[in-house]
Amino acid sequence: MSWFQRQIRLQRRGKGCHLVHDEIVKQVPEIRDYKVGMANIFLQHTSASLMLNENCDPDVRRDMNMALDKICPEDFPYIHTDEGPDDMPGHLKSGIIGVSLNIPISNGRLATGTWQGIYLCEHRNHGGDRKVVVTLQGEKK
Amino acid sequence: MSWFQRQIRLQRRGKGCHLVHDEIVKQVPEIRDYKVGMANIFLQHTSASLMLNENCDPDVRRDMNMALDKICPEDFPYIHTDEGPDDMPGHLKSGIIGVSLNIPISNGRLATGTWQGIYLCEHRNHGGDRKVVVTLQGEKK
Amino acid sequence: MSWFQRQIRLQRRGKGCHLVHDEIVKQVPEIRDYKVGMANIFLQHTSASLMLNENCDPDVRRDMNMALDKICPEDFPYIHTDEGPDDMPGHLKSGIIGVSLNIPISNGRLATGTWQGIYLCEHRNHGGDRKVVVTLQGEKK
Repeated sequence: MSWFQRQIRLQRRGKGCHLVHDEIVKQVPEIRDYKVGMANIFLQHTSASLMLNENCDPDVRRDMNMALDKICPEDFPYIHTDEGPDDMPGHLKSGIIGVSLNIPISNGRLATGTWQGIYLCEHRNHGGDRKVVVTLQGEKK
Repeated sequence: MSWFQRQIRLQRRGKGCHLVHDEIVKQVPEIRDYKVGMANIFLQHTSASLMLNENCDPDVRRDMNMALDKICPEDFPYIHTDEGPDDMPGHLKSGIIGVSLNIPISNGRLATGTWQGIYLCEHRNHGGDRKVVVTLQGEKK
Repeated sequence: MSWFQRQIRLQRRGKGCHLVHDEIVKQVPEIRDYKVGMANIFLQHTSASLMLNENCDPDVRRDMNMALDKICPEDFPYIHTDEGPDDMPGHLKSGIIGVSLNIPISNGRLATGTWQGIYLCEHRNHGGDRKVVVTLQGEKK
């Protein structure tokens, strides 16, 4: 049984859903040491989210961003508006989508399905880079 | 400390929310070996979801499906429409609901509340059977 | 490697989003014994949710509750209405937001970001106190 934990950073991106799967995996090559285990990927922010979704067609990410804007619009009668019209919808999307992914590890790889990849959903128009804590645990090879 | 991992299949179902709690638990009887631990149930797909919700009244599952269709309708202005009108709403629902459940294990049983059961939310009109990776870890009895 | 599990209770609250971070942490001081690990916080109910979100401005919690009511309104054509108009929207919100949080532990503390705190989102007008199973695992100091 072995534990590993590292804080990594995801580069600053504009508002939208971005495929960051490889950017994350490259920063934790230790995944390949685990025969069976669990990876937790935890975003330390409240106006962005982590999501598993379709890893191939960029149109899915565009549609996802469009649909999230329709479900969580800027024109709800929010009170918390000091930080701009994109702030409270960002908290709302973050709460609905979530910030903590748990992905099994099998034979040194994340056991995602063929079409699954990790998205960073950036909900702010001008967010910064984003901090992520990756925690690995399991039985090593 | 002991790890266990198995890929299981959930039989093909029509669009809707389905109570699959027993179908999952029966395929991993090893749960009963753990005194205290954690079960991760991970769906390897992007147009279906796993949800914990009310395990008794089938009307809740019908209402859930109806409500998800209202929140994530087929008539949003999607670009990604090649795979049919149910495809992009399926990705959207999958992203919002999620595909990875973490349920504590206590004394050989999933420590769910009295009214909680695992749903497979199938978002496609004609999805196939669905692959799930179950990972158990904990202290054995 | 060490496991810890305790069922705790969150006091009864009215409908809305409530910051319960300290109420939870105070009931599991054992967190401070872990150098690196994982905390799972699991709500055993189907009409309330656990969410990580902004821990500072109470207006965010008010806006969150308002927005969830708009996304999951009471006037959808629900069948399951025996327990009142707030019941099925509660199941819906619970399914969308989720009931199981996974938060890494680093150096004896939950590794949440500066602005993150745990919310109990109570979806019923007259819910009772809420049961939560907290499971800690990791390497002790």
